[in-house]
Amino acid sequence: MEQIPGTGDGPERGPERGSGRGSDRGLVDLDFEYRSQRQRVLFGTGRAADLLATVLGELGAPRVMVIATRRELERSAAVLGGIRAVVVFDEVVQHVPAESAERAHRAAGAAGIDVVVALGGGSAIGLAKILALWSERPGGLPIVAVPTTYSGSEATAVWGLTRNGVKTTGFNPRVLPGTVIYDAALTLSLPRELRVSSALNALAHGVDALWAPGANPVSALIAAEGIRMLARALPRIAPGSGSGSGHQEALYGAYLSASAFSSTGSGLHHKICHVLGGSFGLPHAQTHSIVLPHVVELNAPAAPEAEARIAGALGSPTAVEGLLALRDRVQGPTALRDVGLKEPDVARAVALILPTVPASNPCAVTPDDLTRLLRNAWAGTAPLPQ
Amino acid sequence: MEQIPGTGDGPERGPERGSGRGSDRGLVDLDFEYRSQRQRVLFGTGRAADLLATVLGELGAPRVMVIATRRELERSAAVLGGIRAVVVFDEVVQHVPAESAERAHRAAGAAGIDVVVALGGGSAIGLAKILALWSERPGGLPIVAVPTTYSGSEATAVWGLTRNGVKTTGFNPRVLPGTVIYDAALTLSLPRELRVSSALNALAHGVDALWAPGANPVSALIAAEGIRMLARALPRIAPGSGSGSGHQEALYGAYLSASAFSSTGSGLHHKICHVLGGSFGLPHAQTHSIVLPHVVELNAPAAPEAEARIAGALGSPTAVEGLLALRDRVQGPTALRDVGLKEPDVARAVALILPTVPASNPCAVTPDDLTRLLRNAWAGTAPLPQ
Repeated sequence: MEQIPGTGDGPERGPERGSGRGSDRGLVDLDFEYRSQRQRVLFGTGRAADLLATVLGELGAPRVMVIATRRELERSAAVLGGIRAVVVFDEVVQHVPAESAERAHRAAGAAGIDVVVALGGGSAIGLAKILALWSERPGGLPIVAVPTTYSGSEATAVWGLTRNGVKTTGFNPRVLPGTVIYDAALTLSLPRELRVSSALNALAHGVDALWAPGANPVSALIAAEGIRMLARALPRIAPGSGSGSGHQEALYGAYLSASAFSSTGSGLHHKICHVLGGSFGLPHAQTHSIVLPHVVELNAPAAPEAEARIAGALGSPTAVEGLLALRDRVQGPTALRDVGLKEPDVARAVALILPTVPASNPCAVTPDDLTRLLRNAWAGTAPLPQ
Repeated sequence: MEQIPGTGDGPERGPERGSGRGSDRGLVDLDFEYRSQRQRVLFGTGRAADLLATVLGELGAPRVMVIATRRELERSAAVLGGIRAVVVFDEVVQHVPAESAERAHRAAGAAGIDVVVALGGGSAIGLAKILALWSERPGGLPIVAVPTTYSGSEATAVWGLTRNGVKTTGFNPRVLPGTVIYDAALTLSLPRELRVSSALNALAHGVDALWAPGANPVSALIAAEGIRMLARALPRIAPGSGSGSGHQEALYGAYLSASAFSSTGSGLHHKICHVLGGSFGLPHAQTHSIVLPHVVELNAPAAPEAEARIAGALGSPTAVEGLLALRDRVQGPTALRDVGLKEPDVARAVALILPTVPASNPCAVTPDDLTRLLRNAWAGTAPLPQ
C-alpha cells in the first residue's frame, strides 16, 4: 500500500496535526474538525413579508409569537402584515435580562405558541433563543429570525442571559433559528454611522474565525468570502455614499462571517472586545471596529495563511493595510479614548484579558503585547503594516 | 428611507429574482435559498481508528453495529480494532437491495443498537441510511460514516433502496450521517484507475451544483473550492503519479463538492448520467467523467458566472479547456462507446433524458442538443472550448 507522508516540505507537505493553520499560502491544513448546523437561509430584498408568510404557511396554521421592539413593530409593520400573531412581545432589552425573558416565557406558555418570529437585531433574536432554550414543547420551539442588523446572532447557537447584572452565555443547537429571512431593505433603518460600525463588527467575525480555537479550512473559506463581501459593500453603505446593492452584499457578508464564526468560537479579538464591553461599558460595534486592526497586527506575523486570506479578501498587499484603508475610507472610529475608555483602564483591561487569551492563538501573547495593543488602540495610533 | 433599486446595470445591479445565476463575473445573486445541515466532519490522515474511538466514547458505551464489506473489514481491521461491535454486517450490495436492508434492520433491532458505523463507499453508507430511515429508536439512529471513496454519499441526506429491480430514492434529514471521519489513508486501497474516475465523478458534483435547481452563492463558493482541490489533487493521485498530499486534497475536495451538491439537488449532468447508468447499465464514475465536459460545453454560454467559477477553479482560460486538459493529463475515460453504450442507444437515451431536464438549467435543452451531446460523448469527440 502507498504511504502518505506525515510531514514534508513545499506544496506536497502533509498536515500539521492540530495546528489549525498552514504556513504555505493556498495550502489547506487537512487535519481538522468542522461542525455545520441545520438552517434554512432565505435572502430576498423587499420580500420579507412574502417569505415570512410562506415559511409560516408551510408550518400549517401555527400559533405565532412575534418578538420585536415597539419601534421595529411600527417601522416594519408591512413585514408582519400578512401573518396573525397570538402574542406580540415588545419588551426587548439588550443582553436579555432574565426578568424580561421570564415574562416572555410565561406569555408564550399561556398562549401555547408553536413558533417565534424574532424581528430585529441581537436583542430580539437573543430573547427568542432563551424561549427556545426553556421551551418544553416536544421537538423544541422553532425560531424564524428576521434580522435588521449585521449582528449575526441569527447564525449562531450561542445564547446569553443576564441575571443580577451577570451575563451567562452558552451553546445549544436548540436555540439556533431554523429559518432566517434576510431582507436588505430592513437594514436601511439602521442609522448610517451605526451601519458602518456594525458592518466592521461583522467583518471582525470573519477575521477572528481564521484563528479561533475551532478554526478550520471550511470556515476559513466562508469567512474570507464574508470579509470580501463586507469590504466591497462598506464604502457603499457609509454615510455620504449612494445606496444600492451594497446593502445586500453587506448583509450577505455579515451572514457568511457570522456563520464561519459560529463554527470556530471566539478568537483573541472577541476576547479583548468582550472585556472592553463587559467591564468598561464600551459600545459593542465601535469597539470591534477600533480594536480589529491592532489584533491583526499582533497575529499576522505568526499566521501567514490567515494574513494572506484577509489581504486577498480586502484586495490589499497586507491585511493591516487593507483594514486601515477600509476604515479610513468609511470614516470608522479609530480610538478607544473617543468611545469611553480612560487611559488608566488599560492596565486593568490587560489583567482581565490575559487569562482569556485562547490557547489556539497563532502567537503567545504577553502582558507587554497586550499593553502595547491597547495603548495604541486607546490613542488611535495606526498599527504598522507588516 | 433609502431605496434599494430592484434592478440596475453594472456592479450596482440588484438581484434577479429567482434566477439563481448572475451575469457579471464576481457578482453574487442575492435572492436565493440555502439549506445547511447539521454534521460533524473530522479530517485526520491515518487517524480514523483514534477518531472513531473518540467519537464512540463520547456517546457513552453505545451498542455499535458495523457495516462494511468482508474485504473492507480485512483491509481496515486496524480502524475497527479499538471498538467493540455487537453486530458486524458485511452483506453490502450496490444500490441497497431491500432484502439485504431488511436483514440488516432485523439484526440491528435484535441487538438493540445505538449507533451504526459505516465503513466503505456509497453502498455501505447507503445501507446505514436505510437503517436510520427505518429505525424506531427515539431521536433516530445516529450514523458515523468512515468513507473510503470519493462518492460523497456521507455528505447527503439522500437515501436509495432497490426493490424488485426498481430503485427508489428520497431525501430525509434523519439519514444524514451526524459524524463523518475522513482519513485519506483509507482511500489508498481504491484501485488507481477507479480513483481517477471517482475523483472526476466527485468534481462533477461541484460543477452540477452551480446550475442545479437549488443553486445559490453559498453552495457555489463551496463547490468552486471543491473543484479547485480536486483539480489540484487529480494529477497527484493518477496512475503513475507519486503519492502525497494529493490524496488528502482529493478527499477534501470530494467532501466539499458533495456538500455543495447536497444543498442544490441534481442538475442536467446528473440527470443524464442517471439515465445512462440506470437504463443502460453504464459504470457510474466513468460515465460522469466522460459526460461532464459535454454538459459544460452546452451550458457554459448561458451560465457565464458558473463558467467563470469553473475556469477559475481549474486555473484555465475556459471551463471546457480546463476539464479537457485535466482529463487528458490523468488519462480519464473519454468515450461512452468504450464503457458499453451502443450507438443506437443514443436516441432512446435522449428520449429518456428530455423529460428530466431541470427547469433551472441555464439554457433550454432541445432533442437536437441532447443528441449532439450524447453522440459526441459516445464517440469521444472533444467538446469545443467556448
